[in-house]
Amino acid sequence: MESPRFDASVYARRLSAAAAATAEAGLTGLVISPGYDLRYLIGSRADTFERLTALVLPASGDPTVVVPRLELASFRGSFLSELGVAVRDWVDGDNPYELVSAALGGAPAATAVTDSMPALHVLPLVGVLGVLPVLATDVLRGLRMVKEECEVDALRKAGSAIDRVHARVPEFLVPGRTEADVAADIAEAIVAEGHSEVSFIIVGSGPHGADPHHRYSDRELQVGDIVVVDIGGTYEPGYNSDSTRTYSLGEPSSVVAEQYLLLQRAQRAALDFVRPGVTAEQVDAAARDVLAEAGLGEFFVHRTGHGIGLSVHEEPYIVAGNDLPLAPGMAFSIEPGIYFPGQWGARIEDIVVVTEDGALAVNNRPHELIVVPVS
Amino acid sequence: MESPRFDASVYARRLSAAAAATAEAGLTGLVISPGYDLRYLIGSRADTFERLTALVLPASGDPTVVVPRLELASFRGSFLSELGVAVRDWVDGDNPYELVSAALGGAPAATAVTDSMPALHVLPLVGVLGVLPVLATDVLRGLRMVKEECEVDALRKAGSAIDRVHARVPEFLVPGRTEADVAADIAEAIVAEGHSEVSFIIVGSGPHGADPHHRYSDRELQVGDIVVVDIGGTYEPGYNSDSTRTYSLGEPSSVVAEQYLLLQRAQRAALDFVRPGVTAEQVDAAARDVLAEAGLGEFFVHRTGHGIGLSVHEEPYIVAGNDLPLAPGMAFSIEPGIYFPGQWGARIEDIVVVTEDGALAVNNRPHELIVVPVS
Repeated sequence: MESPRFDASVYARRLSAAAAATAEAGLTGLVISPGYDLRYLIGSRADTFERLTALVLPASGDPTVVVPRLELASFRGSFLSELGVAVRDWVDGDNPYELVSAALGGAPAATAVTDSMPALHVLPLVGVLGVLPVLATDVLRGLRMVKEECEVDALRKAGSAIDRVHARVPEFLVPGRTEADVAADIAEAIVAEGHSEVSFIIVGSGPHGADPHHRYSDRELQVGDIVVVDIGGTYEPGYNSDSTRTYSLGEPSSVVAEQYLLLQRAQRAALDFVRPGVTAEQVDAAARDVLAEAGLGEFFVHRTGHGIGLSVHEEPYIVAGNDLPLAPGMAFSIEPGIYFPGQWGARIEDIVVVTEDGALAVNNRPHELIVVPVS
Repeated sequence: MESPRFDASVYARRLSAAAAATAEAGLTGLVISPGYDLRYLIGSRADTFERLTALVLPASGDPTVVVPRLELASFRGSFLSELGVAVRDWVDGDNPYELVSAALGGAPAATAVTDSMPALHVLPLVGVLGVLPVLATDVLRGLRMVKEECEVDALRKAGSAIDRVHARVPEFLVPGRTEADVAADIAEAIVAEGHSEVSFIIVGSGPHGADPHHRYSDRELQVGDIVVVDIGGTYEPGYNSDSTRTYSLGEPSSVVAEQYLLLQRAQRAALDFVRPGVTAEQVDAAARDVLAEAGLGEFFVHRTGHGIGLSVHEEPYIVAGNDLPLAPGMAFSIEPGIYFPGQWGARIEDIVVVTEDGALAVNNRPHELIVVPVS
């Protein structure tokens, strides 16, 4: 069993970097309720809704956790004391928003809140602070987007685990079984191969493969189906895997085989294009151009990729219009696809991490259309 | 397979009642993003985060769903057209908050947002509306709290299903197995007995039973353990079960047996006290008084119950200070417990629905301490 968190020094570094970014943004402090930002900053998986739990991180001075007394136990075994985080617990009848304001030093001029904070807490907090906060995403983007070595290590382990699941997928794909049957086997394999939980499962067979948002259904697999399998899980301490491979039940037609080869070239072109200084939209264009030149541009209907880490979808987004220059440590998917409505679809997806001079793929299964023998 | 939703007339009634409550509260309209309120009002399980999906319900005039074009498919097969809900889809580059404002008739004076709307959407919405909204909870409370017949029926089916799981729990409780082993069996049984998913599982054995917030661990069951089993699942179309029984691995000591009998009396007293016009806090006191008179008051450390429906915890809360008079259709738990830190704990929980002259229990397993024979 892996430790559920990194060691305290990782969180200490993140807290000081976040405080510095807060100061630089001209803000008095951050107010971070449960969610990915809280997990990122102090490793906490606190998960309260009705009663406010929040990390208050002033631009200067000590951070405080405001927490319902009932939920104090959820911080047992956490690093709060090593990190110098004060704990201010509260009981029904107290006003936790006043506690947040006090932890910010009172009368804060400008604050930022985590993007997942529910209206239930945002509205009374605004009432106490007297000013509308901004989103902490803008302050934390630069930190969360660039992965440290320990994060890259976690993403690599997650990637290897999902590769092992894909290695087992052909045995699950038997004509007559439903997509849901296959999904159940995959769910079991995702956990058996080392993930702590399943994040998502897409089994898109035949015409369902043409809908990039399909999950799985009671459709029975048929000989000749092309099957898109896009799967991911969470690997402790919380980093996600996400990889797609496409399978053919029996030999594909020559048209499918040819169009798939073009998709494979497009995915390869984008992978090869990744290096520091290149922009996110250039990587998107690298895949898109290959398909467009082959006359398949209109069948590639989504962005080329999304960042990944504690969350399955985060920045940077690999999409037209995003002129963010890539930097070492950024981690994201490269996942072009082609979709022929009512007929079939295909997608190939790897997670890559930008290195000093290129990219490291954390997924390493073969990229070919995988032919599953049928009797 | 049950239908995932009630028929359209249920949602039509809810939409008009919500619009009337909105008008009565002096508000221009409600803005409801994905969550229980959206599910309640139109049966939608839309689940977007980054891109805004919202039902806009003006106090007068037609409702509108503002939805990213990518997510339009999630409303396929819904009742939007039967309900007269206009659909306004948007693509990246559009300002969905302007669309919300327009659907409210432009320049709305006062609006309410669902309590789960994330800051990510609350803050830009406030920017466009120019005024801070209030919480829709206050508008929808009266509606969601009083269950219609079809909801009571769903709660009863959920209750019977969790009763069937409790009937199987003794076979799972074998000395030497871990709480986690037992939880895995329970998870399987929750789904096998008709729930669509597991909501939560608590297996608190021996000293773990003394922590009401314990879930389950790798502790091995021992002969002589008292085991608190508090479990629930979701039953289509989305209503929850929640029931606790306490088990003894072998015959309990006479002290445990006596104290458990007092708890059983307390739970019975609260059940018997439920009827229209009685307040929530009086029901809490009915259970608490029995334990206090027996000198066990300090070991009953939480409220007596919580409302239940689409959400596992909702209003009405059965707690000191809540002077809400109960009314027919209100559904909530009656779950007193006693907790002896480091030693053992016990809890008995049923869900009840207030009737015209009393209460209907949706859980009907025996309330005695259930002795599991050990060899």
